[in-house]
Amino acid sequence: MSGVDHVLQHELEQLYGRYAGLLDDGPLADWPELFTEECLYLLIPRDNFDLGLPLAIMRCESRGMLVDRIRASQETMMYEPRYLRHQITNVRASVDAASGEIHASAHYSLFEVLPDELPRVFSIGRYLDRIVRDGDGRLRFREKRCVYDSVLVAYTIVYPI
Amino acid sequence: MSGVDHVLQHELEQLYGRYAGLLDDGPLADWPELFTEECLYLLIPRDNFDLGLPLAIMRCESRGMLVDRIRASQETMMYEPRYLRHQITNVRASVDAASGEIHASAHYSLFEVLPDELPRVFSIGRYLDRIVRDGDGRLRFREKRCVYDSVLVAYTIVYPI
Amino acid sequence: MSGVDHVLQHELEQLYGRYAGLLDDGPLADWPELFTEECLYLLIPRDNFDLGLPLAIMRCESRGMLVDRIRASQETMMYEPRYLRHQITNVRASVDAASGEIHASAHYSLFEVLPDELPRVFSIGRYLDRIVRDGDGRLRFREKRCVYDSVLVAYTIVYPI
Repeated sequence: MSGVDHVLQHELEQLYGRYAGLLDDGPLADWPELFTEECLYLLIPRDNFDLGLPLAIMRCESRGMLVDRIRASQETMMYEPRYLRHQITNVRASVDAASGEIHASAHYSLFEVLPDELPRVFSIGRYLDRIVRDGDGRLRFREKRCVYDSVLVAYTIVYPI
Repeated sequence: MSGVDHVLQHELEQLYGRYAGLLDDGPLADWPELFTEECLYLLIPRDNFDLGLPLAIMRCESRGMLVDRIRASQETMMYEPRYLRHQITNVRASVDAASGEIHASAHYSLFEVLPDELPRVFSIGRYLDRIVRDGDGRLRFREKRCVYDSVLVAYTIVYPI
Repeated sequence: MSGVDHVLQHELEQLYGRYAGLLDDGPLADWPELFTEECLYLLIPRDNFDLGLPLAIMRCESRGMLVDRIRASQETMMYEPRYLRHQITNVRASVDAASGEIHASAHYSLFEVLPDELPRVFSIGRYLDRIVRDGDGRLRFREKRCVYDSVLVAYTIVYPI
């Protein structure tokens, strides 16, 4: 494993920026395009992750499943309007020399605004990702593990983090 | 429109860093210098923005108006001491080939500390900005739209976001 | 004093990213390695800092003292399990031409998760740091001042910010 240079770092930051922007401001339908067709998306409580338990509260194993998830969350959103805002920071990455795969981590905070309420912290945690350069030259997530620090699980997590 | 390279990205990040630093730690009087003399500063609720409504709760149309706004907010601050802290993240930019103008977006969170209280989330949202290289070679905001996600409006917004 | 270029900026961001990662996800024992052997770590309320008062609520004057602090905080953590998450943003730096020392500032937010509670904002503020390239070529903190905006002091600050 070796670190990434400033040029690749810039490209990674743009990927995370686009990830945050598409989830918060849309178009949501473009968000699955940030993943490879065969991919893994996991939403895992930190306690489970630290214990090596495989249980995830959301698991998608292909871009098609992510598309379905987005559709489902949009239907739910219709009944419960709210805004979300990500901040993705402190991206660190290294390249696996053998496979060329990029291993990246980042810290996130996710804020929620419900109608007639002040914004509140919804979820905090980190991303542990594997990123590859896809056939069209773009960086995409092959694996994304969203490890959230909260022990308490908001019942409203139907939406990707 | 084409993306910006890592060198220009670095310069943009410094502009946003300076923007955050001047608002939070001062000197506030230097903050309007980050805008071109002819400029547009808008603070807009997301609901209005999404509907294309022009209504902004703060509107400044020149650097001079920003200077006035800063003076007014400082007078208010004297009666209501508090600290503010920005985090500006996920800056994404592209250059308009015809005009050379930079179109940038960023996510922000703004925390507030009142005396004898714990910090709280005051506002979250995004910036939608147009940035130009001014006569002296510095990047400056020609237009800044602060689109805040909150539906509820804190009555205390006399201060730029 | 002159600004830093994008290559040094990238290296600084990695230092801050590693700082955040080690505090939040460990191994904590590696965290003091980010400081030079002779160093200064101060945790200072903003009110005191602005008034030029020397009083800090945490003061470590060597890497050895930081090691001790980490051990003490780990013992405390055993009685009060919680998770912490940093976001360090808007890093700005310049180089002192005479000494070669890097003067850097950054904004931070620190979130806390207690068992069976939703995440909350624990502390916000800024870092005012002096960074040097150490004998082994790595950037390390020679001085770090964590200036927190809160006036109220959580009695639980036994842990570095």
